[in-house]
Amino acid sequence: MDDIVIVWKEKPQLKDPIMIEGLPGVGNVGKLAAEHLVDQMKATKFLEIFSKHFPPQILINDSGTIRLVNNEMFYVKRPDSPNDIVILVGDYQGLTPDGQYELSDKVLQLSKELGIKKIFTLGGYGLGRMIETPRVLGAATDDAFVEEMKGNGVTFAKGEPGSGIVGASGLLLGLGLLYDIRCVCLMGETSGYFVDPKAAQAVLDVLSKTLGFTIDLSALEDRAKQIDQITSKLREAEPTSEPRKEDLGYIG
Amino acid sequence: MDDIVIVWKEKPQLKDPIMIEGLPGVGNVGKLAAEHLVDQMKATKFLEIFSKHFPPQILINDSGTIRLVNNEMFYVKRPDSPNDIVILVGDYQGLTPDGQYELSDKVLQLSKELGIKKIFTLGGYGLGRMIETPRVLGAATDDAFVEEMKGNGVTFAKGEPGSGIVGASGLLLGLGLLYDIRCVCLMGETSGYFVDPKAAQAVLDVLSKTLGFTIDLSALEDRAKQIDQITSKLREAEPTSEPRKEDLGYIG
Amino acid sequence: MDDIVIVWKEKPQLKDPIMIEGLPGVGNVGKLAAEHLVDQMKATKFLEIFSKHFPPQILINDSGTIRLVNNEMFYVKRPDSPNDIVILVGDYQGLTPDGQYELSDKVLQLSKELGIKKIFTLGGYGLGRMIETPRVLGAATDDAFVEEMKGNGVTFAKGEPGSGIVGASGLLLGLGLLYDIRCVCLMGETSGYFVDPKAAQAVLDVLSKTLGFTIDLSALEDRAKQIDQITSKLREAEPTSEPRKEDLGYIG
Amino acid sequence: MDDIVIVWKEKPQLKDPIMIEGLPGVGNVGKLAAEHLVDQMKATKFLEIFSKHFPPQILINDSGTIRLVNNEMFYVKRPDSPNDIVILVGDYQGLTPDGQYELSDKVLQLSKELGIKKIFTLGGYGLGRMIETPRVLGAATDDAFVEEMKGNGVTFAKGEPGSGIVGASGLLLGLGLLYDIRCVCLMGETSGYFVDPKAAQAVLDVLSKTLGFTIDLSALEDRAKQIDQITSKLREAEPTSEPRKEDLGYIG
Repeated sequence: MDDIVIVWKEKPQLKDPIMIEGLPGVGNVGKLAAEHLVDQMKATKFLEIFSKHFPPQILINDSGTIRLVNNEMFYVKRPDSPNDIVILVGDYQGLTPDGQYELSDKVLQLSKELGIKKIFTLGGYGLGRMIETPRVLGAATDDAFVEEMKGNGVTFAKGEPGSGIVGASGLLLGLGLLYDIRCVCLMGETSGYFVDPKAAQAVLDVLSKTLGFTIDLSALEDRAKQIDQITSKLREAEPTSEPRKEDLGYIG
Repeated sequence: MDDIVIVWKEKPQLKDPIMIEGLPGVGNVGKLAAEHLVDQMKATKFLEIFSKHFPPQILINDSGTIRLVNNEMFYVKRPDSPNDIVILVGDYQGLTPDGQYELSDKVLQLSKELGIKKIFTLGGYGLGRMIETPRVLGAATDDAFVEEMKGNGVTFAKGEPGSGIVGASGLLLGLGLLYDIRCVCLMGETSGYFVDPKAAQAVLDVLSKTLGFTIDLSALEDRAKQIDQITSKLREAEPTSEPRKEDLGYIG
Repeated sequence: MDDIVIVWKEKPQLKDPIMIEGLPGVGNVGKLAAEHLVDQMKATKFLEIFSKHFPPQILINDSGTIRLVNNEMFYVKRPDSPNDIVILVGDYQGLTPDGQYELSDKVLQLSKELGIKKIFTLGGYGLGRMIETPRVLGAATDDAFVEEMKGNGVTFAKGEPGSGIVGASGLLLGLGLLYDIRCVCLMGETSGYFVDPKAAQAVLDVLSKTLGFTIDLSALEDRAKQIDQITSKLREAEPTSEPRKEDLGYIG
Repeated sequence: MDDIVIVWKEKPQLKDPIMIEGLPGVGNVGKLAAEHLVDQMKATKFLEIFSKHFPPQILINDSGTIRLVNNEMFYVKRPDSPNDIVILVGDYQGLTPDGQYELSDKVLQLSKELGIKKIFTLGGYGLGRMIETPRVLGAATDDAFVEEMKGNGVTFAKGEPGSGIVGASGLLLGLGLLYDIRCVCLMGETSGYFVDPKAAQAVLDVLSKTLGFTIDLSALEDRAKQIDQITSKLREAEPTSEPRKEDLGYIG
């Protein structure tokens, strides 16, 4: 079999589309945010990516049928906007460095095919400590994109994240330079200890401002409140909760 | 050398054949069940699969001669049934995710070549605790197959197994969807601590009802009794035997 | 670069040649024995095997020049015998299962090219305890070869080694079956804790009887005596020297 | 995507060029030395090497823009010398043995294309203890090169480093033999516990003598003094600082 198998459900005609990527990573910030967009925008699935670089695993639906783990692309047509939207979500990132490169490269090939000229990758920036009001940090492929995103509330802080960005959210930018696709990575600050809907909200705030859409965040807010309650109880019970070292790294 | 080497001993003409897969995994349930079928049905070996994805290892026969570790296919002709049977057994599953995908994909290619339209994969569902009367849990590629198997005593329980199915028993279903081959995975509940003939019996009960054959299970029953005796003694000796964490995962 | 690079120093014309393989492994028995043969028989190097499957490492000669780690083939012309000899030695075995398969397969291709119809692979059988008089255990590709080697003092013991043979010494036999090359593996019993010249002697005794040559073993005997002295002192000093678990496995 | 992607910024015409390689390794000696050369010689970048064998990582510039981790080549034109210079630096070495081989092989292919006939690889030789006046140890592809470098103050010591040289600094020599490119590896002695500018100075002393250039080492000297101050304080505070075992190996 091919290393990566693409299954087109539909070949959509899209108007100057922009891609938003959110795969599993630190605090699952990117995945939460992108899946929330898919739900709220009632996006349409048009493409599935299967690969040897994912685990050899199936997931079981509530009905007892199954699906092979994958990444998926959805589209949203926006009649009142110059840009339609493509959203990339998935169960996993590539398991190996090699697999990460191959998968991100394939996503960029598909982006070219779809006419995508701009990509927003979403992730979390793990701080290793609880955070009240998460900032959104950024990194981009060109100076003009940096300036534009500063205007939309994104922080570009010298030396943050110090070790750069590892994983799909970074690699799409790095390889994007070779494909001449403009990309920005938006990272919501997160402890990294929990799935973090608050960081996902922060990232979606920036995104809605930048791309000109309004989106109902109440579902994420409810989830964030639940998690706040759990963690505040944990803090009462356990006054000194030392973070585990391995949670601190950033994989986007 | 090729990543996977197929050696045909015979090219059998089979009548609308159905495949049964049982490779090493949790409690070795699938392997036990499938090898028991090969023995009891006096199945004929017709194909060997060698691969770089298996360990670089030979096994030594009692006579001092050797064989390279492999997977093997057997057939059973059934004059009184509409379906002949193909059984896939083996020493190992692929060592890496990549190898798992390549090997399952090759099995599906061979299935197409043999005219197989339905596959039953057999495995264990590790519970991490001793179990008196194991259920058989299922997952299938389509709703009709789910309904059919419910009628044959298979449990399709929402959220079980929660993390899906890892390994060949799952992957054949996942890739089977791409090959348009209908598949079901039958998982006998097992502690996962021992080779588990009782779970293998449970799986074979379902299988014989579904495929319309009778099979002598006395050899498995004897083995199950022996293991019951050993474990009941262990329980007397060691009142609190904490399971090791790594035994709880499911690899089919 | 190719995964495996073959550099021919000379293309020898050999008379019905037999190959002897001895690569690093348990107690370095095979490597010791094969390198002793190269020295004593004044064998001529004619071929080098470089590969990505070896470590990315060079070794430094006493003069300050270097060589890339490799496997090498030597030949010995024997005017008074029906069979010339080819000896395969080397710094490493393949680092991965995949690499092991590729390298053994390449050696068998080269064997075919050289007209080799019989291969003797040499290794150690790790017992995890000190051994006074090591037996030589065997495994072979066909019954006739088993019988022949029994006649030359090789023990073929049911269930030994129980887990088969891992590595080049086993894989050449396993893949040899596919190439129709007759092979036997000779394993000298060894504790596995030290480089073991005594086990190498035992293996060479069998080999010289089988292939009809005489060879001076005094260098190996001297080394064996030195190691005996060291280990007997260690036993006095440390009455209970528990073997490390990981030393007990067999890699040939 | 290809395993290795080469991006030419410029195709320079170079006069009998000599390559100097310095990638991350023990004490980062090679990287420090080569990057110091790039700075001081105001070398011009002309080529970038991207690869799946590097981590899937981007680095963030101070301006908020990014770059994909890579290796890079610079050139220096020297009107008054018979040899122009090419310098290879980078963020990483290949992550796997396989990747190490592929990358070094590609560098040698590029060297052939650029007309390079001589390569100097720079590295550290980790001693696992503090060292006052580091020697520069050497290893070379041919005897004449050994003699020449002895004349320039390089030590070729029997059995040092005992386990040879692992990584790009070694592999370029090993594969260089197959490409008929003359290479020498220069290893500055270092504790291996810190980034070591003193060892980098020692290596550059040899290099400037050999290639006939003068270079300002004051920046390295300042850094060396800072590190000396830190380590002397550490030694006062902690009289017995046992080195960690894993720091002692050599990866060049």
